[in-house]
Amino acid sequence: MKITIINGPNLNLLGKRETGIYGEKTFEAYFNELINRFPTIEFDYFQSNVEGEIINKLQDVGFSNDGIVLNAGGYTHTSVAIGDAIKAIAAPVTEVHISNIQAREDFRSHSLISSGVKGVISGFGLDGYRMAIENIIHDSGNSNTH
Amino acid sequence: MKITIINGPNLNLLGKRETGIYGEKTFEAYFNELINRFPTIEFDYFQSNVEGEIINKLQDVGFSNDGIVLNAGGYTHTSVAIGDAIKAIAAPVTEVHISNIQAREDFRSHSLISSGVKGVISGFGLDGYRMAIENIIHDSGNSNTH
Amino acid sequence: MKITIINGPNLNLLGKRETGIYGEKTFEAYFNELINRFPTIEFDYFQSNVEGEIINKLQDVGFSNDGIVLNAGGYTHTSVAIGDAIKAIAAPVTEVHISNIQAREDFRSHSLISSGVKGVISGFGLDGYRMAIENIIHDSGNSNTH
Amino acid sequence: MKITIINGPNLNLLGKRETGIYGEKTFEAYFNELINRFPTIEFDYFQSNVEGEIINKLQDVGFSNDGIVLNAGGYTHTSVAIGDAIKAIAAPVTEVHISNIQAREDFRSHSLISSGVKGVISGFGLDGYRMAIENIIHDSGNSNTH
Amino acid sequence: MKITIINGPNLNLLGKRETGIYGEKTFEAYFNELINRFPTIEFDYFQSNVEGEIINKLQDVGFSNDGIVLNAGGYTHTSVAIGDAIKAIAAPVTEVHISNIQAREDFRSHSLISSGVKGVISGFGLDGYRMAIENIIHDSGNSNTH
Amino acid sequence: MKITIINGPNLNLLGKRETGIYGEKTFEAYFNELINRFPTIEFDYFQSNVEGEIINKLQDVGFSNDGIVLNAGGYTHTSVAIGDAIKAIAAPVTEVHISNIQAREDFRSHSLISSGVKGVISGFGLDGYRMAIENIIHDSGNSNTH
Amino acid sequence: MKITIINGPNLNLLGKRETGIYGEKTFEAYFNELINRFPTIEFDYFQSNVEGEIINKLQDVGFSNDGIVLNAGGYTHTSVAIGDAIKAIAAPVTEVHISNIQAREDFRSHSLISSGVKGVISGFGLDGYRMAIENIIHDSGNSNTH
Amino acid sequence: MKITIINGPNLNLLGKRETGIYGEKTFEAYFNELINRFPTIEFDYFQSNVEGEIINKLQDVGFSNDGIVLNAGGYTHTSVAIGDAIKAIAAPVTEVHISNIQAREDFRSHSLISSGVKGVISGFGLDGYRMAIENIIHDSGNSNTH
Amino acid sequence: MKITIINGPNLNLLGKRETGIYGEKTFEAYFNELINRFPTIEFDYFQSNVEGEIINKLQDVGFSNDGIVLNAGGYTHTSVAIGDAIKAIAAPVTEVHISNIQAREDFRSHSLISSGVKGVISGFGLDGYRMAIENIIHDSGNSNTH
Amino acid sequence: MKITIINGPNLNLLGKRETGIYGEKTFEAYFNELINRFPTIEFDYFQSNVEGEIINKLQDVGFSNDGIVLNAGGYTHTSVAIGDAIKAIAAPVTEVHISNIQAREDFRSHSLISSGVKGVISGFGLDGYRMAIENIIHDSGNSNTH
Amino acid sequence: MKITIINGPNLNLLGKRETGIYGEKTFEAYFNELINRFPTIEFDYFQSNVEGEIINKLQDVGFSNDGIVLNAGGYTHTSVAIGDAIKAIAAPVTEVHISNIQAREDFRSHSLISSGVKGVISGFGLDGYRMAIENIIHDSGNSNTH
Amino acid sequence: MKITIINGPNLNLLGKRETGIYGEKTFEAYFNELINRFPTIEFDYFQSNVEGEIINKLQDVGFSNDGIVLNAGGYTHTSVAIGDAIKAIAAPVTEVHISNIQAREDFRSHSLISSGVKGVISGFGLDGYRMAIENIIHDSGNSNTH
Repeated sequence: MKITIINGPNLNLLGKRETGIYGEKTFEAYFNELINRFPTIEFDYFQSNVEGEIINKLQDVGFSNDGIVLNAGGYTHTSVAIGDAIKAIAAPVTEVHISNIQAREDFRSHSLISSGVKGVISGFGLDGYRMAIENIIHDSGNSNTH
Repeated sequence: MKITIINGPNLNLLGKRETGIYGEKTFEAYFNELINRFPTIEFDYFQSNVEGEIINKLQDVGFSNDGIVLNAGGYTHTSVAIGDAIKAIAAPVTEVHISNIQAREDFRSHSLISSGVKGVISGFGLDGYRMAIENIIHDSGNSNTH
Repeated sequence: MKITIINGPNLNLLGKRETGIYGEKTFEAYFNELINRFPTIEFDYFQSNVEGEIINKLQDVGFSNDGIVLNAGGYTHTSVAIGDAIKAIAAPVTEVHISNIQAREDFRSHSLISSGVKGVISGFGLDGYRMAIENIIHDSGNSNTH
Repeated sequence: MKITIINGPNLNLLGKRETGIYGEKTFEAYFNELINRFPTIEFDYFQSNVEGEIINKLQDVGFSNDGIVLNAGGYTHTSVAIGDAIKAIAAPVTEVHISNIQAREDFRSHSLISSGVKGVISGFGLDGYRMAIENIIHDSGNSNTH
Repeated sequence: MKITIINGPNLNLLGKRETGIYGEKTFEAYFNELINRFPTIEFDYFQSNVEGEIINKLQDVGFSNDGIVLNAGGYTHTSVAIGDAIKAIAAPVTEVHISNIQAREDFRSHSLISSGVKGVISGFGLDGYRMAIENIIHDSGNSNTH
Repeated sequence: MKITIINGPNLNLLGKRETGIYGEKTFEAYFNELINRFPTIEFDYFQSNVEGEIINKLQDVGFSNDGIVLNAGGYTHTSVAIGDAIKAIAAPVTEVHISNIQAREDFRSHSLISSGVKGVISGFGLDGYRMAIENIIHDSGNSNTH
Repeated sequence: MKITIINGPNLNLLGKRETGIYGEKTFEAYFNELINRFPTIEFDYFQSNVEGEIINKLQDVGFSNDGIVLNAGGYTHTSVAIGDAIKAIAAPVTEVHISNIQAREDFRSHSLISSGVKGVISGFGLDGYRMAIENIIHDSGNSNTH
Repeated sequence: MKITIINGPNLNLLGKRETGIYGEKTFEAYFNELINRFPTIEFDYFQSNVEGEIINKLQDVGFSNDGIVLNAGGYTHTSVAIGDAIKAIAAPVTEVHISNIQAREDFRSHSLISSGVKGVISGFGLDGYRMAIENIIHDSGNSNTH
Repeated sequence: MKITIINGPNLNLLGKRETGIYGEKTFEAYFNELINRFPTIEFDYFQSNVEGEIINKLQDVGFSNDGIVLNAGGYTHTSVAIGDAIKAIAAPVTEVHISNIQAREDFRSHSLISSGVKGVISGFGLDGYRMAIENIIHDSGNSNTH
Repeated sequence: MKITIINGPNLNLLGKRETGIYGEKTFEAYFNELINRFPTIEFDYFQSNVEGEIINKLQDVGFSNDGIVLNAGGYTHTSVAIGDAIKAIAAPVTEVHISNIQAREDFRSHSLISSGVKGVISGFGLDGYRMAIENIIHDSGNSNTH
Repeated sequence: MKITIINGPNLNLLGKRETGIYGEKTFEAYFNELINRFPTIEFDYFQSNVEGEIINKLQDVGFSNDGIVLNAGGYTHTSVAIGDAIKAIAAPVTEVHISNIQAREDFRSHSLISSGVKGVISGFGLDGYRMAIENIIHDSGNSNTH
Repeated sequence: MKITIINGPNLNLLGKRETGIYGEKTFEAYFNELINRFPTIEFDYFQSNVEGEIINKLQDVGFSNDGIVLNAGGYTHTSVAIGDAIKAIAAPVTEVHISNIQAREDFRSHSLISSGVKGVISGFGLDGYRMAIENIIHDSGNSNTH
């Protein structure tokens, strides 16, 4: 089972800035935890601040992976093009947000990519990624949890 | 550990109508699966079509439970009062929607209750309830999964 | 042939208030006229000021009745949940308004329940209920008029 | 008793196009049924695709008829001028729509002519015209039904 | 002189939650102070989280009381039906809000019930209820203040 | 000096309807007064309920007349096409409204034709036509007033 | 017959700035022309850049004058208070604009003062003041034109 | 205890215009009643039609008074600057409106000054000023009522 | 192969007005060029300033022609009725605009007829008509170009 | 004659996905057909999913090419920066969309780049590119069609 | 070289209120620093809470000064009249805001005066005034910095 | 002291296009002037048309520089992601625009990045960069001006 995690703009700063709020764990460290937790899954991790490179990645893995977990960051609210890519590929995409975006600025309450995704997980911190992965496993009928 | 699941209007029809789409499983049957899956958790299930009774229930369990899973159905988009109740109680509330509400009618893309919840899970079918419960467990630092 | 008439909030005051405008006839009296006019129809009448009880009633009769005549009063403009109930049940629902709601305040010109109903009758006073019933008869191909 | 039925743009194509949906009955054929059903009423039928000709007709019959049944088609949503004509004449106008316009595109949910009409009947197919006529009879205190 | 105080959703939690902000006084305790302060007035107190029960109460006392003090809580911003009930009854209704709703979220700045009330008192804490009562007394020409 | 007066929809009913409000003078009678008042001016009067015929007339006289006085009635608020015609012709157009359209319904406060006209006169009753004509004379440097 | 002309902000610069566009005539010079043209009228002229002083002037002359000609300049689009003053006084107010405000920026197409005035004259240059005065004379039934 | 009452535009006309509606009492007369009713309070009364003079007054008394009662009239809906002044001064400001502004024109339902005031009293006629004063006394813990 | 070209309001003035901008070629002259360029096509040309006559023409040729080229002029932005006619007929309609309507006034950026057409060509001057015709030929699989 | 075709995000998937809808032809294959059809034109083809790379390309060829055919895909609706680039370069840009974007989701009906292009071609499938090229040839006065 | 600094409403309170935030420096003290820093410039300082007096000052110095630095305070967002004055005068106006108005309430993000100014400086505290002055010097080609 | 200047899309064309308007000076030449003017500052200059590369650069220098001067060009109005990056980094960011963006198209009046910046400088041409740099120096308490 192959799953790709794609993080959008500024998510590379996790654990490096505002650690009082977000904690000292980098996404790379968290990603290692996921690898250990789900040993039978083949993971791929990609981060970019460039909208088009996120589209490139979605297209690259979108016809061979079993699932994609996407946190598009700020592009969530402005990118028709990422939304189109999600609809164009075959793999189901789960939209994840670390914070509860409905509880923040007004412009974050509208997502341009949600209409094409399988589902949305918002507000559960890093645990949202794990929840997304377990749902992909759940749908595949397997029981890969460690 | 005590968790209450609250379902709002029309969710009592699950498994009884449009079974071609939603399957033949009633929520009561699914609820039994949850009880079996999480044997150490004390569950409580409540469904009502009445907005105010949902508020009553939130208040009743909101100061003693470890978590509340709420699918407010159509009231999600129209109820300031449920949103106020969520903010007034102590227990964390997880908002669940069976379908991906961002992919449906425009009026479903705006939630009046999200700003007070811990997080939102939308679009994963009945599995969203399990995901919500596992996140409550995750946050409590326990490992109650069967 | 079974038909249920459901009246929403404040319609229980008909004939008891503002009789200069609405006349001195209560809805109960008018309902008796309907029973006499359509003797072969089995009527059921329900009024509630509670949104959720209207949903309960729609669900109760929505799988056994031949038609439902619904005047949701003020909930017409605010209730996503009643709109969802109408779409979930099997019986066709006819929306009736005593006054011409398009000729009143702006907020009354938008109905949240119309998209699921069979049709709308607005502005014909109490006679709108009779018109709704005759259309149900018309559709059933019978000729029950007295 | 004199009643005029006015149909607006594209309603001349009824029965001639999309017969899978609308059936094979032309409005002319339906109009004959109405004449037979209500033998004591003097009917007049007018159809035009021209907004101004509909206004001309409303003015022509608006001071001598007992009632006008108007389906303004697409002009319903764009014509201030027809709305003004309805308010200027003496005869009561009933607005009829074959389909349930509240269940279609957003721009059809707003009517520029409704504020001046007696009432609106929407969504009952051709039967809406009969309902309109019977309400005019009802108001006149007569019992002309065949 | 008979006055009814009606409190809407979540106001039953006053004095029981967030006491750091709202103080430790329950509404019941405050209500006793009002009874003592205005000994010649016959008071009635009602609280419900259910929109329709508030309408029921307004109708019950609306034709016999000298005044109604209503804090509709979250329903202030969403209930056309309560607004209709206020207009339908005979007793003057005074709208009270404990906090200054114009200084809070945008959605609280619009009231669907204000157009039918006698006046609005907003932002004076529990003292707003006393102010409302004294104005009712003032209008009645009496001087019942203790 | 040649001036054409063009009246739009429903203005042919002036003096024939609602005479309690608008008086018993028809526009034809008023037009005769204008002819007498300005004997040196060659007048032309045109009224139509058809939007396109108003455009036809504007085009017919728009390259030979010294001025056009246009009361487009309800088309004022809905006709891009009349606005385009005004900009396409050579003669200056003065927009006249009998009532003060800014003091009526909201939809009448926006004019789609004003951006191309020389000026707007609104609210002065029939006297607005005289004012428009005198301004055309004023601009021509003549002194034709009787 | 007493008529006051009130000019709002920046209109004191007429004839002194942008003379290529507005000409070299100051409003004072034009005002003298009006005095000569209408010798039997007692004129009063007032200009202020201060919103409140315009209100003061409206109140001062509003109960003794036969008519007021008001060009409120930029306050036309922002002053609820001037609009209230117009409605509070007894004298009819005519709103004049030198340019066609409907043909300029969007924010100039909405007037907050029009709903209380007798009528609006817009786009005729300085001649709009003369037109306003002649209409006041016309309404008084006199014939004071020189 | 020092309290200043500030009235905005057109409120100087109270008792002098539209006495059928507002009564024959001038605000000066009413102010004398207040002085008599609250003999231990040092009152100051100020009225101006000029927005900036209201700001001047707020600044003048805003650091020495115990409370300010402000009816900003039409500036309520248009003045960011008065709203800023209220936030800048130390004395609590109570916003009063004689009529129920939520029941009037749409543009009156939005207040630009409310977010900085202590509370709002709207719709109780002149009695609103007394209510505001008694609340200031109430907050000061004194019992100055006569 | 039969193709009808329909031009809407004011397009009859092409080549006769503003020739500095639009050139001195009338549409009739251009139409002759088209006839010469595509000799095997049977052309029909229709122009009207009347909305309803454009609908009449669409209906007349809409069931026998191979394609319709429509420049609806100002009705593009205001006519629901023409949009309905396009959807009702069988022949594919190509929408043409001489100027780039997205680069002009805001109200021209929204088309009420586009959702039913095959495609839109905007901004290429008269050459847009040729482009539309060649696309119809292209779709028919023929090669009629001269 | 040099023409560059620029395709934006997701257009590289043409012919590779949803071939039931879009056909099995890749854009590269179609591009070869264009090369063959227009042998005298020097073509350049560029595709990128990255907004900024599209701007780079526009700048690179924008001062030397005779024309640019741009299908900006999803960036059409969100990119002010591409719109600015189009206005900054010298070569005329033709905007092409394969589908009729006015007939799809609401957010696709508004283009941020159209105001700077020469014209728009929307809805004609891949043939839109050929139409764009022929119009560039047409404007250059040549006749390069094969 | 002559430069006038104009401060709008509430800016006279600088250094006197909320000194924890704004510091203890009054604008008068800061103004003295500016005089010392730019000894060759003839400065003029004006503050008013009255919108119209700001217009008066703009007109007074607007034809003789080399530059005007304007902080219109709350009038920035509500005054069409000040915006008109800026456009009417000859001297270039620089708009200064002490705080970053785009980072505050929504209503502060829109300026009614910006379209006529030379430029805007926002968010740099009192230093914004110095920046404005240096830019005026820069444009004049002098080098007056001390 | 280290300062980075970041220019967004199309700003690489400065001095190369529209030199009649923008002058013949390239940004590189201007940058050299800045280096000469501020010899003690270590400058870094970066330009990209790619939104994500601007984010990369902000992150690269955002934790070591003393200040960043950012002209995000067209991304100013569309990029939530750049706005998020500004808030995530430590260095203060000054937003610069060469033209007065409030005086251009409506869509340029709203900035998605301003809420996180220290301040905004708009409309002063290239001199805005110098002003931004001097303010950074000013804040650092140094006096590096040459």
